[in-house]
Amino acid sequence: MGSPADQFKLAPSDDPLSAFRDEFVIPTFRQMNATAVSAELADQPCTYLCGNSLGLLPKRAKKLVQEELEVWGTRAVEGHFDHPHGRSWMYIADTVHPYFADLVGASESEVACMGTLTANLHLMLNAFYKPTQDRYKILCEAKAFPSDQYAFATQVASRGLDPSDAIIELSPRPGEHTLRTADILSAIARAGPSIALVLLPGVQFYTGQYFAIADITAAARAQGCVCGWDLAHAVGNVPLALHAWGVDFAVWCTYKYLNGGPGAIGGLFVHARHADLPVAQAGWWGHEPATRFDMPPRFQAIRGAQGFQQSNPSVLATAALLGAVRVFRDAGGMERLRARSERLTGYLEALLKASRFYAEPVQAFEKEKEELRVSIITPSNPAERGAQLSLVFLPTGRGIMPRVLKGLEARGVVGDSRKPDVIRLAPAPLYNTFEDVEQAVGVLDEVLGEVEQEG
Amino acid sequence: MGSPADQFKLAPSDDPLSAFRDEFVIPTFRQMNATAVSAELADQPCTYLCGNSLGLLPKRAKKLVQEELEVWGTRAVEGHFDHPHGRSWMYIADTVHPYFADLVGASESEVACMGTLTANLHLMLNAFYKPTQDRYKILCEAKAFPSDQYAFATQVASRGLDPSDAIIELSPRPGEHTLRTADILSAIARAGPSIALVLLPGVQFYTGQYFAIADITAAARAQGCVCGWDLAHAVGNVPLALHAWGVDFAVWCTYKYLNGGPGAIGGLFVHARHADLPVAQAGWWGHEPATRFDMPPRFQAIRGAQGFQQSNPSVLATAALLGAVRVFRDAGGMERLRARSERLTGYLEALLKASRFYAEPVQAFEKEKEELRVSIITPSNPAERGAQLSLVFLPTGRGIMPRVLKGLEARGVVGDSRKPDVIRLAPAPLYNTFEDVEQAVGVLDEVLGEVEQEG
Ligand SMILES: Cc1ncc(COP(=O)(O)O)c(C=O)c1O
Ligand SMILES: Cc1ncc(COP(=O)(O)O)c(C=O)c1O
Repeated sequence: MGSPADQFKLAPSDDPLSAFRDEFVIPTFRQMNATAVSAELADQPCTYLCGNSLGLLPKRAKKLVQEELEVWGTRAVEGHFDHPHGRSWMYIADTVHPYFADLVGASESEVACMGTLTANLHLMLNAFYKPTQDRYKILCEAKAFPSDQYAFATQVASRGLDPSDAIIELSPRPGEHTLRTADILSAIARAGPSIALVLLPGVQFYTGQYFAIADITAAARAQGCVCGWDLAHAVGNVPLALHAWGVDFAVWCTYKYLNGGPGAIGGLFVHARHADLPVAQAGWWGHEPATRFDMPPRFQAIRGAQGFQQSNPSVLATAALLGAVRVFRDAGGMERLRARSERLTGYLEALLKASRFYAEPVQAFEKEKEELRVSIITPSNPAERGAQLSLVFLPTGRGIMPRVLKGLEARGVVGDSRKPDVIRLAPAPLYNTFEDVEQAVGVLDEVLGEVEQEG
Repeated sequence: MGSPADQFKLAPSDDPLSAFRDEFVIPTFRQMNATAVSAELADQPCTYLCGNSLGLLPKRAKKLVQEELEVWGTRAVEGHFDHPHGRSWMYIADTVHPYFADLVGASESEVACMGTLTANLHLMLNAFYKPTQDRYKILCEAKAFPSDQYAFATQVASRGLDPSDAIIELSPRPGEHTLRTADILSAIARAGPSIALVLLPGVQFYTGQYFAIADITAAARAQGCVCGWDLAHAVGNVPLALHAWGVDFAVWCTYKYLNGGPGAIGGLFVHARHADLPVAQAGWWGHEPATRFDMPPRFQAIRGAQGFQQSNPSVLATAALLGAVRVFRDAGGMERLRARSERLTGYLEALLKASRFYAEPVQAFEKEKEELRVSIITPSNPAERGAQLSLVFLPTGRGIMPRVLKGLEARGVVGDSRKPDVIRLAPAPLYNTFEDVEQAVGVLDEVLGEVEQEG
């Protein structure tokens, strides 16, 4: 097997994707207020492992936004129809659709660049969640992202149903941190005829678990349930094949692995078999473009996902995203990126496991030891996770994590925390390096050493 | 009375607001492809009277967007919490709320900077349109903006109602172009108990009519109806006092008079008396900010309009809008701008009426004459209109309008057209000049003269 480096690290000559780092603006240690970094290093790029939260600025996104400001200033209203860079604002969302199609495994008519994740989730719930007397439940996870939980609760309540009856929440088995696929499948089999909708995350925000989308979707559909996915942490992270997997619908944001910028415009997928599903909350942007500006009184939906568009989209936000997704295509797409991602995350895991502070999750959680330890709650099977590893600091509930986070920040290792005990680190295959991973673990060891000394 | 100039035009020394033109980037004749303009003038600002469609780029919007790109590049995820310009992204929407409050006449908790107009309209319909057996109708105008029509039709249909029964559409009297307030009030009185919702535009997109919001709202509420407003063409155009007028809810876009940029982020108003209205489609951004990032499983809505926020908003779009609305405050607010606006539009009307091609609307439409004419369908009472005048070219249905539009464009007068016969011209009080108005009418006369000659 050899050392972690032997096993995972690519030599520069075997790592053509490493060139894409140049496509991004990477904050320096100084800019990130990494006060513990020596003056000579202060203007070097920091160790940014937070692309699961906010992706870095792609230089092309910046360029395109600046171009759109220029077009606004020089063409004003004419930018909608006659655009110097060929991106007429009337069709600006359409420029993103081919990239979305590639990223999620769909045809262009199955995807739409629009809105924001939670807003799109509600649109999809309005269209797909049709509770009947017998079939009215939503199967989801107990620890779903809160926005999704709020969406489920208010959707159920606004249909006059009781959330405590209508929402089935799946939790990991006692002592475990992630859901077993077999348990999800058996929950579906058990409650099948009462379930209207199965809605799970492609990649779980907290644990980094990559769900078995194909199998779960097939099982849900076999029971007559609709199956939708929140792909916030999956898109741009793992290869997806939503059409082939038969997914009914999916929604995503684009500010994480896709690097679309803070609050970036979102996306949705509607499977081709639902291309004529009635749009329950229509707007002129979902109307056939050929007659959209003639503005006939009767709504004629674009077939497929784009019929759900309501409003003309933010040009600045869409241009930023367009710049960002172009980088994915030039990098050769998700399969290639995933191969590099598995190496980076595998390397991170292997180095963490080699740390004297490492504890196996089982050992760590069955009997909470008194010793200072770091463990990993993300599945160790690479097929069951994306880029992110979720570290938990032990003993839990003792305020270790915030101290570690502070130490990492001071040394310019940027991850993000989830109270009370978790820090998420995600090497992004488009811009992170094997050295970033080494640096992160080296710094973590150093910080844990300090915490240990301070007691 | 004196000449139109005597009556309306302000001397530069009496026109302090004229200084705000410098706040904007105005496309030149050359940039607008105004090919008929002489070479010496080509690099002068064009005659942009299209702020009712897309407002010009405020220099401050450009600056703020560029700053946000910089912050994304230098602070990345930390921009959410610790922002070099004091605009932490977590609270970026809140930076706009005081400006929205001023612009629409509301308290900050009654407004939200979020989403887009049609999306917000649906959120409001989901919350406020609660049809019952007896009270289920929507009263609107027959020629509402199509996106609103599509919204009404699909909302009604998705409640299982028949649009042809549940939607009452008001049309102007035969031979008239705009709705009489008295007719709206009597329609409300007549159908009152069956009307769940009255939804009208503050300023009508096609005719430029400014509706009597206070009186109509009072009449609707007296009948027990909810009263909502589409303020796309009203916000930033006329002073509004939504709270005092008792309006239940309102929605708006910000890319017209507010100059927020193409597809800019939108706004909504919910009257304080509905501050605890249940949010039917909740998301984490509507959750109390103090605990939003702790992400508790139970949704606790922000009281008031901001509880309707679903997702974290586009920072680029919000920053552009923030730059844009700051100009309004520095200009002294809507009352001052409205005074200048009435002069500009009054001047435009007076100069048009002095044209040899002008025809009174009554004369023009009762018996369609053969002669080439321009008329105005916007109310001539300044209190019943905003900045925009809608010109109609006669004889109608003969393809005059597109020829005129082309002539205007070639000479750098930018308006926008509504097929088949209307061109809308809107002097914006923040950046247009009395000379723009003179130029527009002079060019229009010239173009009509050419059309006349060509036959
Ligand atoms: C009166 C009115 N309502 C609604 C809309 C739709 O706007 P959006 O695309 O922002 O939803 C517009 C757009 O111009 C409008 O003028
Ligand atoms: C898994 C997941 N779902 C939903 C959301 C909510 O996103 P938005 O604010 O774009 O609606 C997030 C945001 O981070 C997320 O991670």
